[in-house]
Amino acid sequence: MYRSHTCGELRTGHIGLEVTLAGWIQTIRKFGSITFIDIRDRYGITQLVIGEELNEAINRSALGREFVIQAKGIVRERSNKNEHISTGEIEVGITSFETLNKSNTPPFTIQDDTDGGDDLRMKFRYLDLRRNELKKNLELRYAVNRAARNYLHEKGFMDIETPFLIKSTPEGARDFVVPSRMNTGQFYALPQSPQTFKQLLMVSGYDRYYQVVKCFRDEDLRADRQPEFTQIDCEMSFVKQEDILNMFEGMIKSIFLEVKGIDIKESVQRMTWEEAMWHYGNDKPDIRFGMKLLNIKSSYLKNGKITAEGELIAGSGFAVFDDAETVLAIAVPGAASYTRKQTDELTEWVKRPQIGMKGLVFIKCNTDGSYKSSVDKFFSEEKLKNIADACGAAAGDLVLILAGPEERTRKAISELRLEMGQRAGLRKKDDFKLLWVLDFPLFEYAEEENRWVARHHPFTSPKPEHIDIMIGNSPVIENASAYLQHPYAGIKANAYDMVLNGNEIGGGSIRIFQRDLQEKMFSALGMSKEEAQHKFGFLLGAFEYGAPPHGGIAFGFDRLCAILGGSESIRDFIAFPKNNSGRDVMLDAPSAIDGKQLDELGIKTV
Amino acid sequence: MYRSHTCGELRTGHIGLEVTLAGWIQTIRKFGSITFIDIRDRYGITQLVIGEELNEAINRSALGREFVIQAKGIVRERSNKNEHISTGEIEVGITSFETLNKSNTPPFTIQDDTDGGDDLRMKFRYLDLRRNELKKNLELRYAVNRAARNYLHEKGFMDIETPFLIKSTPEGARDFVVPSRMNTGQFYALPQSPQTFKQLLMVSGYDRYYQVVKCFRDEDLRADRQPEFTQIDCEMSFVKQEDILNMFEGMIKSIFLEVKGIDIKESVQRMTWEEAMWHYGNDKPDIRFGMKLLNIKSSYLKNGKITAEGELIAGSGFAVFDDAETVLAIAVPGAASYTRKQTDELTEWVKRPQIGMKGLVFIKCNTDGSYKSSVDKFFSEEKLKNIADACGAAAGDLVLILAGPEERTRKAISELRLEMGQRAGLRKKDDFKLLWVLDFPLFEYAEEENRWVARHHPFTSPKPEHIDIMIGNSPVIENASAYLQHPYAGIKANAYDMVLNGNEIGGGSIRIFQRDLQEKMFSALGMSKEEAQHKFGFLLGAFEYGAPPHGGIAFGFDRLCAILGGSESIRDFIAFPKNNSGRDVMLDAPSAIDGKQLDELGIKTV
Repeated sequence: MYRSHTCGELRTGHIGLEVTLAGWIQTIRKFGSITFIDIRDRYGITQLVIGEELNEAINRSALGREFVIQAKGIVRERSNKNEHISTGEIEVGITSFETLNKSNTPPFTIQDDTDGGDDLRMKFRYLDLRRNELKKNLELRYAVNRAARNYLHEKGFMDIETPFLIKSTPEGARDFVVPSRMNTGQFYALPQSPQTFKQLLMVSGYDRYYQVVKCFRDEDLRADRQPEFTQIDCEMSFVKQEDILNMFEGMIKSIFLEVKGIDIKESVQRMTWEEAMWHYGNDKPDIRFGMKLLNIKSSYLKNGKITAEGELIAGSGFAVFDDAETVLAIAVPGAASYTRKQTDELTEWVKRPQIGMKGLVFIKCNTDGSYKSSVDKFFSEEKLKNIADACGAAAGDLVLILAGPEERTRKAISELRLEMGQRAGLRKKDDFKLLWVLDFPLFEYAEEENRWVARHHPFTSPKPEHIDIMIGNSPVIENASAYLQHPYAGIKANAYDMVLNGNEIGGGSIRIFQRDLQEKMFSALGMSKEEAQHKFGFLLGAFEYGAPPHGGIAFGFDRLCAILGGSESIRDFIAFPKNNSGRDVMLDAPSAIDGKQLDELGIKTV
Repeated sequence: MYRSHTCGELRTGHIGLEVTLAGWIQTIRKFGSITFIDIRDRYGITQLVIGEELNEAINRSALGREFVIQAKGIVRERSNKNEHISTGEIEVGITSFETLNKSNTPPFTIQDDTDGGDDLRMKFRYLDLRRNELKKNLELRYAVNRAARNYLHEKGFMDIETPFLIKSTPEGARDFVVPSRMNTGQFYALPQSPQTFKQLLMVSGYDRYYQVVKCFRDEDLRADRQPEFTQIDCEMSFVKQEDILNMFEGMIKSIFLEVKGIDIKESVQRMTWEEAMWHYGNDKPDIRFGMKLLNIKSSYLKNGKITAEGELIAGSGFAVFDDAETVLAIAVPGAASYTRKQTDELTEWVKRPQIGMKGLVFIKCNTDGSYKSSVDKFFSEEKLKNIADACGAAAGDLVLILAGPEERTRKAISELRLEMGQRAGLRKKDDFKLLWVLDFPLFEYAEEENRWVARHHPFTSPKPEHIDIMIGNSPVIENASAYLQHPYAGIKANAYDMVLNGNEIGGGSIRIFQRDLQEKMFSALGMSKEEAQHKFGFLLGAFEYGAPPHGGIAFGFDRLCAILGGSESIRDFIAFPKNNSGRDVMLDAPSAIDGKQLDELGIKTV
């Protein structure tokens, strides 16, 4: 070794010891003939003190930031102790040193608050990774990986590797494909997930499987998507939904305890998909704060049931509400004091194209007991009070109301709720609220193709009580505009998502394990028998040889780490991420390849 | 859960308990009105006893092998105890049962000695994986994975994921490539190893990295190669070769202890590449047995030095020896009793095209002290005795001698040695002998291109004392037939392999960490400055910002598992392997893809 100790290791107990350290120069300070060097490695920073006798050597070496040096010396007590670093009580009086490698001046400062822009830091990722923030992120990522593995191991799960060069069966997202040289004209696909393999492993009797595994999706990238991403992928046999929920609730709690030191004692809250949509306007509610949605048009969810309890807004002659398909309200705590300027700004906020609403109605529940609204002309104070009361607004709160087509309005108020929660400081990074969302719809309507697609994936089982609805009805949608009236729209799945602070961190289902039901599922998705056989014949075949009941879940490892690290961006938790065009700007990949390579593969670029 | 206990869990302590089991029917035996069913899961087998009251239900269910059932009953003591299984002291008297899934008759029996051929078992891999042998293999694989991870974690290594969609820089093996849809006409490559990334992580200061990671090589497959394979990939900073050898010797010992219960106390034997080639004829000697090679033509290695100690065979007028470039001998213990038929068969064995020798000379060292050989005409008994003595042959041994061109003869006698070791039962599956082979040549001569290629990879550092030879001489080979006289032929690398029972299980090196030396290395390999910059500019760039000295190793995880499992074939230790044409016959992959997919990728098949 080039060192006897790391740069984070020395304490007062080492005083008097001769040591050798190696690392990077963080800072150099000269005080007359004495030079102080802070030397850094993964483990910490140690202060080196170099006396006048080495001055000439120092000058000759022309040391600078990020130079790699090896230094030998004696540990001694520091007069000016530094409480902020673990080695702050000592320093090393250097007797000799050597430059192991030089460094150019880095293109940005390697500090917590770096001056490097995004592009520069991506190009010099190996320097950005030296920054403390990214190092902490990768350390957290490793800790989560380790905690998950340890938990799953204790629960009898086995890590079994599944193949990366598989068959292309695009259903949903696009596959990345790999041309085969030995089978010219044919292609492998990279897995979007090991779904069918883990199911085969259940058929093979492995009972409990896990893998921390790369998956690939060739999608147009949004800000927070990567073409390659990592899943904690799990599957169990002989289980019902309740078993899976308990098992993986345990895993997440174990991760919180190991990684964050947070001991979550209570059970993870549960909510049906219907409840989530009604109360929060989306299927991954951030339950760190309330502000539940209320449909004040005609009906709302009360005590878990959709009820039509009379009209809160009817007969007021306010056409915007009367003509709207839906009218949704939230009560923002303590925001009655909003000024005209502030409510105008909020109105502009909901009118932005991303939100797409035509306007915003508000009711101020003043602390003096009066009610003021932007629609005073149409609503008496009593009516305003009734609405505010129904929303659960207290004195000092601000009720915000959006009206319009159901889907868009629901989405808009869900965004507005999150925004108001953010503004009110109710979405704290270090407040972690877990949630199970249950009973997802089995199908989703694909407008372009006017057909049903699997909401989760085609291997998800319908609720037993809904199987007959699926089998007994044709999937064909006669009237596209009334697709919600099709019997398939109401079929629920044995599917569940785990949500953390408004982010889906995991999702899974109890799977279909009978060949005939699986065939019916494929057929419901508009797949012909031949197509189903061609794509998934191996799975249908496997189901004929004693497939056990099974189910599983996959966690989005990148996102889980990001949220645990208090960040919105998964990119900061991946060592070598791609940019939004799917490029690795450090490597300059993808890139053109040799004509010879193309020839061997039997392909041509167009 | 569909069960209260697993099929491997119940003991006499459970007697009287009502339990529910779920699993596969291994066997059904009827004795009059009583039915015995052995039910199997991952954890074991339990005997179920079904009385006549359930006869009708049994008949109605038409149960068969591999059906999945759930059975409820009371644990009771077994009259006929079975010592071979962990649950052999009890049985379960069944009160009710349910068929969870039926099974067709499997295409082969799911037993240790299956009747299924290779192709059938590959096609129905999910059934083959039910066999105990494969289950044990995958369990061993998981245990090795876990032991390696635990050791590395304790030593401060961090698992850091490196990308799979990288840049194609073919150097050695062919890359698998992935067309990019978002960057039409450009391609990613799948990594042949995370080599440059782990080096960048060292530059970033991560100090100790590991990953159990899939790698990809588009090579023509031999029997025991897979296009995708797994490495235990490691890298360390501020280390010298000795540190790496100690660290990973520790890892392998820890794996042996954890997985096989074998506590290897002694240090792993070490041997230079030169010694390995001289003594064993190859760079991965099986040292479970002796039979070292002796060059009896003119010189041999004695006390670690190549000496020319006079001629053992000169002046005998035996043209085969006199005209041969090299004459190599081994002494096979106890084989002097070989019959004429047996020596003839051995002669045929070395004449096969795979070995390619023209003949075999033998000397029998008879137990009566006499010497008999196939070349008695040319060699007196005294000369035979001298040769035999030089080979270390004792009375009762058989000396085998091959003569011919150096490289071929060396390879042939190395194979012959292994064959004789095999026949003598000296290569025991459960005898594990580890070995470090050190000081590999830096370069290898590529005949087709008449140039030097990197024996390990272009990032391996030369021995410090050989750097000047590399820098001071042109890589150009003027005289192809005398390439061994080129100064580059003698340059040794800081490279090492770990060998287990004659298989390379790991290999690594101390890396180049200086930009100028790395550039010289690329140039020695015939790469222009532009090409080096285009392919590896990111690494050369990184070396300008304070790269620390570093080195590492990668273990072939599949092979390591196979050897630990006492098998020659890695395929049996991979859940879903490809066949020799790189096909997954279960999935039927690779396969043709949609024209639409090709269009989106901007490629055409030719």
